[in-house]
Amino acid sequence: MEHLEQHERLEMWEKIQKALFDEQIDKFRAEFLELHPYDQAKIFEEQDEDIRFIIYSYLSPEEMADVIEQVDEDLVEAFITEMVPAFAAKVLEQMSTDDAVDILNELDKNKVASFLTIMDKKSSEEIKELLHYEEKTAGSIMTTEFVVIHTQMTVKEAMRHLRKEAPSAETIYYIYVVDSFKKLVGVISLRDLIIAEGEWLIQDVMSERVVSVPVGEDQEDIAQMMRDYDFLALPVVDFQDHLLGIITVDDIMDVMDEEASDDYSKLAGISDVESSSDTAISSAKKRLPWLIALLFLGMLTASIITRFEAALEEVAILAAFIPLIAGMAGNTGTQALAVAVRSISTGELEKKGKIKVIWRETKTGLITGFCCGIIIILLISLVYNQFFLGIIVGISLMATLLIATISGAFVPMMMDRFNIDPAVASGPFITTLNDLISIFIYFGLATAFMSFLV
Amino acid sequence: MEHLEQHERLEMWEKIQKALFDEQIDKFRAEFLELHPYDQAKIFEEQDEDIRFIIYSYLSPEEMADVIEQVDEDLVEAFITEMVPAFAAKVLEQMSTDDAVDILNELDKNKVASFLTIMDKKSSEEIKELLHYEEKTAGSIMTTEFVVIHTQMTVKEAMRHLRKEAPSAETIYYIYVVDSFKKLVGVISLRDLIIAEGEWLIQDVMSERVVSVPVGEDQEDIAQMMRDYDFLALPVVDFQDHLLGIITVDDIMDVMDEEASDDYSKLAGISDVESSSDTAISSAKKRLPWLIALLFLGMLTASIITRFEAALEEVAILAAFIPLIAGMAGNTGTQALAVAVRSISTGELEKKGKIKVIWRETKTGLITGFCCGIIIILLISLVYNQFFLGIIVGISLMATLLIATISGAFVPMMMDRFNIDPAVASGPFITTLNDLISIFIYFGLATAFMSFLV
Repeated sequence: MEHLEQHERLEMWEKIQKALFDEQIDKFRAEFLELHPYDQAKIFEEQDEDIRFIIYSYLSPEEMADVIEQVDEDLVEAFITEMVPAFAAKVLEQMSTDDAVDILNELDKNKVASFLTIMDKKSSEEIKELLHYEEKTAGSIMTTEFVVIHTQMTVKEAMRHLRKEAPSAETIYYIYVVDSFKKLVGVISLRDLIIAEGEWLIQDVMSERVVSVPVGEDQEDIAQMMRDYDFLALPVVDFQDHLLGIITVDDIMDVMDEEASDDYSKLAGISDVESSSDTAISSAKKRLPWLIALLFLGMLTASIITRFEAALEEVAILAAFIPLIAGMAGNTGTQALAVAVRSISTGELEKKGKIKVIWRETKTGLITGFCCGIIIILLISLVYNQFFLGIIVGISLMATLLIATISGAFVPMMMDRFNIDPAVASGPFITTLNDLISIFIYFGLATAFMSFLV
Repeated sequence: MEHLEQHERLEMWEKIQKALFDEQIDKFRAEFLELHPYDQAKIFEEQDEDIRFIIYSYLSPEEMADVIEQVDEDLVEAFITEMVPAFAAKVLEQMSTDDAVDILNELDKNKVASFLTIMDKKSSEEIKELLHYEEKTAGSIMTTEFVVIHTQMTVKEAMRHLRKEAPSAETIYYIYVVDSFKKLVGVISLRDLIIAEGEWLIQDVMSERVVSVPVGEDQEDIAQMMRDYDFLALPVVDFQDHLLGIITVDDIMDVMDEEASDDYSKLAGISDVESSSDTAISSAKKRLPWLIALLFLGMLTASIITRFEAALEEVAILAAFIPLIAGMAGNTGTQALAVAVRSISTGELEKKGKIKVIWRETKTGLITGFCCGIIIILLISLVYNQFFLGIIVGISLMATLLIATISGAFVPMMMDRFNIDPAVASGPFITTLNDLISIFIYFGLATAFMSFLV
């Protein structure tokens, strides 16, 4: 069985729906529960309210929790809110603590408080602890359902403990070892545990070189670390090395996806990640801040051009190459920007050294500038039969490409230096800044050499 | 211990280096091998050739294989090539098959053939099989080192088999079950296996709903699937459901990173992913194709403007707003493009329906166009005291933003329809296309209403 395609889900659903309409609970449950929770969630998301209410009454809170864990994050709030509160509380109770916390973080505080009151005490306490952590840190993505063993246990005892804890733990493939002060002192993989002899002590078989992250660590850095070290889970500790929770690889894959979407959107100048489920108004709201900011920068460019109105009146054809020069500057700046932002976020920049990267970009700008400059001189000489105009456009293009390439790399580095997320120096900003510089160079040159043009 | 920072690695290295210079093999090995292979690799990468040769002689091929698996992919080819061939062949032999194949794919064919001849027969056969698969498909990222059990084994027998295979298998957390025809019929997680009773038959405890991917499946789709279903491994099968290999989550994290870099670079108009380790010439080569293509599009825009030379000679100030209008069109088009490309790659678009998304973008374009149009009319009226010019720029801007928004969404959808990777419709292309359209609208309007301007 592969990932279900849309149409397969539809067919599946038609079968299940029949059972639903005939009020055959058992048949519905048999068919529906056989699916992977991801497919259950995709089918569930597409139902109308009345069908959803029937499903709530046919599934146990535990079964519903599996579905809700896989539902699209934009929709989950609405589903939890429409459920009978007692049922919703039970569903949240049955979910992984970290997923439940993600949902509660989206709800308003009164609702959260009332859910926490109805919930059983153990779950509500676990959730309350996690609710305090700042978004996008280790604390906010970790789970508290993990298996912990002590240094003095034997391998056999550890296996017995593991068998008991396995059903409720988020992962059992790494087992963390604590000392009598609850401090993290080691780790053993299930792989090593099953190879070890039953009577050995855990402290003799565990690895003491356990990699952990502090609870306030940024989620992007954790993702990078997990990818580099090929871990399936990472323990989270406080400043005294007490084990607080674990982060599993499935949560990290979501983080990687989220961060990639985020960088991508910023490069395109969208302030917040947009999805197809946004309405036109919410899309416009996310795009307008940049557009309006750029409008004002555009007015600045316009005022530079008006200062050269005399030159334009004399040689109107100068205007024809404004979009070409400004466009090329913008594009080459975006290219350099993208490379710089990536190399900052992967840590490559630090390794190479900023000066070296800027010098590399300078040489790149010289090469691209030279090539494009020569081509445009030839094109303008041939097409417009104006060699001097070609020279002016060509030299402007060379200077522009050089400066735009350097600034595309330099601006994000400076932002990083001052602890501003370099991805904020998005494409449109660099583009418009380079428009401005390029126009200045072009008309400056044109005015200086006006005598050759007229 | 956390991810080692650059300076920690340096300190670590100074200690290790001393052992190296004093020719204390044992001390060097003790210190170096205590590190995580990732840190070993990072330290190794920074050494000069002569030091690297000492390290080759101090480590066994198996230990060296762990280091090489973690080395940056851009550097690994050089390291393998500089080693004594017999040693390099042994290192490749000891690596995970999938990683060894990745390296061999980069080497020239003669070298590959000679390595395969020196290698032991079993490894070379496994590698040869994988070398045939196309890049970026399931076949190219899978490994053939996995644990397989039969339906008729008992749980106890399976555990015994697992203990024996564990050291060489890439993962043992999912164990795949085949029937007597070697067809994949089930899967059992190690978690479920350790809870099961020893004398039960595997066929009674395994899950028959095993999700697999065909060997030719695209790696991006596999990553999406693994993320959705939260799997740690996925089996790869041929068209008759024979189990060929498995893909593990650590390889998928690399794929996700690669695909994200790829989309990001394309949005910025870089034909191939660039890294800071590229030379200026190789960077320029990756950027020039787009720049030169855009240069020709820019010439087209120039030729449109020259057709309106008469209008420009009469009202030179018209030229001042060219960069503003073209820039806004380019930026808004890139925003719409980024949203469309993301929603195509996540499959969201298919769910929503194209018509609906285009209609949503149309409304978004109307809203942003209206807001920006009104602002520019006010600005030009106030700053330049020219109400009619403001009206013409404002209306052009409205029309331009509307068209640019729609085209930003429409172009990638069309490309997807004709099976072209929509990410190729990168920012610079949409930007320059929209430059062209916007200039046409602006001068068209200006010429039509010239009488109000002069």
